[in-house]
Amino acid sequence: MPTTPDTPALHSQTFRLSYADTDPAGILYYAAWFPWMERMQSEWFFLNGLRQDQLSERHGFWSVTCHTECDYLVPVGLFDEIRIELRLGRVGRGSFDMLHHMVRTSDGVLVAKALITVVTVTPDGSATAIPPILQRHLDSWADGAALEQVADHA
Amino acid sequence: MPTTPDTPALHSQTFRLSYADTDPAGILYYAAWFPWMERMQSEWFFLNGLRQDQLSERHGFWSVTCHTECDYLVPVGLFDEIRIELRLGRVGRGSFDMLHHMVRTSDGVLVAKALITVVTVTPDGSATAIPPILQRHLDSWADGAALEQVADHA
Amino acid sequence: MPTTPDTPALHSQTFRLSYADTDPAGILYYAAWFPWMERMQSEWFFLNGLRQDQLSERHGFWSVTCHTECDYLVPVGLFDEIRIELRLGRVGRGSFDMLHHMVRTSDGVLVAKALITVVTVTPDGSATAIPPILQRHLDSWADGAALEQVADHA
Amino acid sequence: MPTTPDTPALHSQTFRLSYADTDPAGILYYAAWFPWMERMQSEWFFLNGLRQDQLSERHGFWSVTCHTECDYLVPVGLFDEIRIELRLGRVGRGSFDMLHHMVRTSDGVLVAKALITVVTVTPDGSATAIPPILQRHLDSWADGAALEQVADHA
Repeated sequence: MPTTPDTPALHSQTFRLSYADTDPAGILYYAAWFPWMERMQSEWFFLNGLRQDQLSERHGFWSVTCHTECDYLVPVGLFDEIRIELRLGRVGRGSFDMLHHMVRTSDGVLVAKALITVVTVTPDGSATAIPPILQRHLDSWADGAALEQVADHA
Repeated sequence: MPTTPDTPALHSQTFRLSYADTDPAGILYYAAWFPWMERMQSEWFFLNGLRQDQLSERHGFWSVTCHTECDYLVPVGLFDEIRIELRLGRVGRGSFDMLHHMVRTSDGVLVAKALITVVTVTPDGSATAIPPILQRHLDSWADGAALEQVADHA
Repeated sequence: MPTTPDTPALHSQTFRLSYADTDPAGILYYAAWFPWMERMQSEWFFLNGLRQDQLSERHGFWSVTCHTECDYLVPVGLFDEIRIELRLGRVGRGSFDMLHHMVRTSDGVLVAKALITVVTVTPDGSATAIPPILQRHLDSWADGAALEQVADHA
Repeated sequence: MPTTPDTPALHSQTFRLSYADTDPAGILYYAAWFPWMERMQSEWFFLNGLRQDQLSERHGFWSVTCHTECDYLVPVGLFDEIRIELRLGRVGRGSFDMLHHMVRTSDGVLVAKALITVVTVTPDGSATAIPPILQRHLDSWADGAALEQVADHA
């Protein structure tokens, strides 16, 4: 069975699949993972002092999603409990990947994995190298920890 | 069987219920109507020159949803084609109702009806009487027509 | 400021409003509460041994949503943390209301309240009186507690 | 500017981005494309006599989404009108890709492109070669046309 990486997750959220997440086939609606991914990732940036809606004003850059993809590994259905885990993936000069693993809590099986590629842009929308303030966070996240201890939010 | 009002609709949109709209019971997911309602109503305001995101800047007021409700009359399911129709309902001093009727196109049966109550507020968020620019539109909509002919958008 | 009822909630869930829940006005997208309501209410029925997708097979009836409504009391926006609380409302012969209160956790203010009316029907879809198995649960919920202690699920 | 392929689309749908599709940044919510993709693709299979919820019973196999990905090329926002176009991509022995292009109708610019990879499985969930009934459709779609003329549904 597919398994999750050995490195600890930066952040996670646990929820039970409900009617909103499943379809007439009784299994996960394929698009349902994406809002959960955004929700966890946005909260992670928020908890690290990087509110995406204030990045431009406070730090002079925007982060923009330029690519996302998801692999569906094991079927899951109504009322299955899922833990979604966040890790940092590849970091480039002007972009980085956030990795998302969806784990069924009843048996620890990895049921889906996904990534979101984020690029940094200037306020007028041009690509730009990852700014130092963000690079320091990414360096820390690559080691599996927040730059500063963030509050523990369920 | 439930039927729609005799007055013509101000605006309508037709779509086929898909996996996103239905649930493991094979029938409409109860929350699915609301985004369709917002979509049609926002487009109607847009087509009438009342872009909600520019009302404050252009006309000095905001419109805010303060109440919504929906009655589910007849079960519908995957791949049923639905026409959602918009009409003006009750108009008060500082609020008005937009009425939404969901009709199954195969037999014209009214499958759900709903309303959205909108209040007008000043830019700082205080309740205010419906401004004249909006009142003129509402008077026209009460007669079942746009104030000026709007472009025909499918 | 609006406040929640004094009776304890039967069930609750806490989450942070994210991009999926908010719109270009920077405030809650009006339709966003409904999936959260369904999610909590479905989990409550599940935790009480009343899986909605197995009611017919196991107990000989279906529960169907026939009405829902929501009042938006206080504006909330991106990253606000919300606790949604579930209580039993009016109980009739063949229907009952589940009450939902949305509370901003930072100050305990009630920001929205809503209800979902559920009717009980026979497997062929005819209205039927609330069956005894469900009535026993409702009697217990009216007192603010589960019929039997349910497992504690975050 | 990015452009769409020269081959005609098999199917398309046109809609205006609304509050449900956009976020507090005023631009498309990254997860919004996926339900639109599913909606168009499911309708295409339905119009071709391949209702996904009846494939097993009628034809002895299931189609399952195993991968999806999306590239965001050009920012779009509230009230932009979008045409989403469907084409067949790579066809393998037991899987195929459906390609989705999102085009801004005001200027014909390709604003996003995506794909959904579908695998065919036996009713018990094992991978299986694409069955002949489906292969005939895919051969036809590769030439840019339906196997038989389907009804014209807006």
